[in-house]
Amino acid sequence: MNHLQLEAERLDATDSLSAYRDQFQLPEGTVYLDGNSLGALPKRVLERINQTLNIQWGEDLISSWNKHAWIDLPARVGQRIARLIGAQGHEVLACDSTSVNLFKVILAALECNPKRNVIVSDIDNFPTDLYIAQGIQRLLGDRLELRFVKRDQLESALRDDVAVLMLTEIDYRTGERLDMPGWTARAKAVGALTIWDLAHSVGAFAVMLNACGADFAVGCGYKYLNGGPGAPAFLFVAERHLARVTPSLAGWMGHAQPFAFTPEYAPASGIMRLAAGTPAILSLSALDAALEIFDGIDMADIRQKSLSLSQLFIEAMQPLEAHGFELLTPLEPTKRGSQVSYAYQHGYALMQALRARNVVGDFRAPNIVRFGFTPLYLSHQDVLRAVSALEDIVNNGVWRDPKFAERQLVT
Amino acid sequence: MNHLQLEAERLDATDSLSAYRDQFQLPEGTVYLDGNSLGALPKRVLERINQTLNIQWGEDLISSWNKHAWIDLPARVGQRIARLIGAQGHEVLACDSTSVNLFKVILAALECNPKRNVIVSDIDNFPTDLYIAQGIQRLLGDRLELRFVKRDQLESALRDDVAVLMLTEIDYRTGERLDMPGWTARAKAVGALTIWDLAHSVGAFAVMLNACGADFAVGCGYKYLNGGPGAPAFLFVAERHLARVTPSLAGWMGHAQPFAFTPEYAPASGIMRLAAGTPAILSLSALDAALEIFDGIDMADIRQKSLSLSQLFIEAMQPLEAHGFELLTPLEPTKRGSQVSYAYQHGYALMQALRARNVVGDFRAPNIVRFGFTPLYLSHQDVLRAVSALEDIVNNGVWRDPKFAERQLVT
Repeated sequence: MNHLQLEAERLDATDSLSAYRDQFQLPEGTVYLDGNSLGALPKRVLERINQTLNIQWGEDLISSWNKHAWIDLPARVGQRIARLIGAQGHEVLACDSTSVNLFKVILAALECNPKRNVIVSDIDNFPTDLYIAQGIQRLLGDRLELRFVKRDQLESALRDDVAVLMLTEIDYRTGERLDMPGWTARAKAVGALTIWDLAHSVGAFAVMLNACGADFAVGCGYKYLNGGPGAPAFLFVAERHLARVTPSLAGWMGHAQPFAFTPEYAPASGIMRLAAGTPAILSLSALDAALEIFDGIDMADIRQKSLSLSQLFIEAMQPLEAHGFELLTPLEPTKRGSQVSYAYQHGYALMQALRARNVVGDFRAPNIVRFGFTPLYLSHQDVLRAVSALEDIVNNGVWRDPKFAERQLVT
Repeated sequence: MNHLQLEAERLDATDSLSAYRDQFQLPEGTVYLDGNSLGALPKRVLERINQTLNIQWGEDLISSWNKHAWIDLPARVGQRIARLIGAQGHEVLACDSTSVNLFKVILAALECNPKRNVIVSDIDNFPTDLYIAQGIQRLLGDRLELRFVKRDQLESALRDDVAVLMLTEIDYRTGERLDMPGWTARAKAVGALTIWDLAHSVGAFAVMLNACGADFAVGCGYKYLNGGPGAPAFLFVAERHLARVTPSLAGWMGHAQPFAFTPEYAPASGIMRLAAGTPAILSLSALDAALEIFDGIDMADIRQKSLSLSQLFIEAMQPLEAHGFELLTPLEPTKRGSQVSYAYQHGYALMQALRARNVVGDFRAPNIVRFGFTPLYLSHQDVLRAVSALEDIVNNGVWRDPKFAERQLVT
């Protein structure tokens, strides 16, 4: 691995993003390869939350809705996210959870394609996406058909009865990147609208929603955006659809005049109509501060470093493939996100053993170990430290220690 | 007002809750009568958030889902709330916003009363409650009829075609307390289920959901519970209904085995099935810390002091009734919550002038000024200070200053 070590040092020395690591508060000595599940803590979140608690809430109290423009926070945070996903500022709103937002945009998409009644998705999509669609199906009964198929059958499932093609850009298990321009065009060709789940895309590389002609999207605030555990999610509605969506999950914050307190719902004029309840100011403030880090960054630089990190990891891991590690992530750079996954028979125990050595990745049933590469706080030498630890654990059978087999509530 | 001053001093001297004021960080010299809209900042929230950020998120990162039991936080916070609303611990879940939770429980209630298709509510209910029902109506079409009527017509609207009676216990405008035992019994008598919105009840007095036989409820975390701006809300489902609810807004956190990642939705066994997306850990932690304050308190003591404060306020305000203040809140203690409202022609400007003197209440269109009395951080002498300021503003026409007429975004 000596030549890789030299290569890593060389890459780190010319890394234009290396200074960003100092913006994060990370535990000393830990190699954190789980930013695809929960991003690390940006130092500026500490400052912002301190200010939100002590000054805005504690001192200015109720007047902060005006004085600190709490009321606009969902739209302001949405604007910050818009640049990262190739959307216009007024097409994105930060609110609720990804699941709740998906519920809203599925109903919106069905409303925008009223003569169709089929939703097509990948049966290996992230489960909450499937569950949310199943819940809507229970609600609508015969008015909706779900066609969930294996990825290689998506194309044949996409016929001219399809209202919505719902896909996640990055496969949460394998890290494979789906072809957003291609699938969006294929959907459009049969008259279907698209919903993209950007959970593992946003903040990892430049998403190109409008350039692809995407219709709707949702995404997550707590992975590559570093907004904190359970951070607010976001939704995107392409401008051309905004005016014709009348949300079914419609609360007072989505009303044209919330403070007129009229009994009849009337949708707000833009993306705000997709809002429901009172915005979660603490969590939105944390996410907003975390997003400030991205303001000065070109997403192309993030992408370049991300690929460089994952490429190095795959290369360094090659010797382990003879020991039962099967690479699940495509080798072709354009076909992966910012995560590399392997199938490994003893994956759960392996990951526990790895964490005990301060290298943090995660495990997904039944046998997948995942490693996320976040360019803002990882170096190429971190990547090699992680592989060293893995080699040692495998070569010495460390994972066989029974304590690493004990199942935790959350895997 | 001299005899009232002596009375206030006497009441404060024997106030068993006076020590709690020190648990809140309130701006020096402010009389905060808006805890019915946004509760004040509990000092222990600062400690808890500091710990959640620095230790749980920053240091323990992803392992906190297990190590700090983040995964159970919605149910644990729900348990804390349960005691305050007369529910069992396993009947309450803290999650999402009040609006989103209302969406879930309306659909659940309709599912539990499948042969009926009418929702009855008060046309003066808080607007988001009406909007959420209207959204569901758009979704279900002919399968649902909304019967929103004036309060004095509720009884005649409650016929044997009614599936759900949806009411808010405390009128957000007038502070009137509706008769929960009476309305729940009347609904039951015609075979209807009840949904109670406890936004202005929870934390203000002991709510008696199970004693009344209530079926469903929702409520707010950021008013009398002091959980912070946009804090997570909660929902209640009576145990007898839990097993037969299959939620339509169903995400992975409500799945029987969220970490099995199976494509088919299967509801969790208890109240967790009403969960949707990943829980908002920061906001839930703030709310949890705020609720700890209630752990040592008998809600009867809170109620007694609340009535004592509002009684004193009404008495002290009497001279102002000759100057155009019309009391909207019932005089009868059992018929009010913890808020007193007046109609006043120049209410908006009056409230701005009052805030300029560090007495904070709020305004609701078209002409209502509201004053909330939170026993944990208010004294009887605070109440009299507020009335003094009001008298001065009215007697000297202070509110006529044009700067107080300028409309803010949020009223």
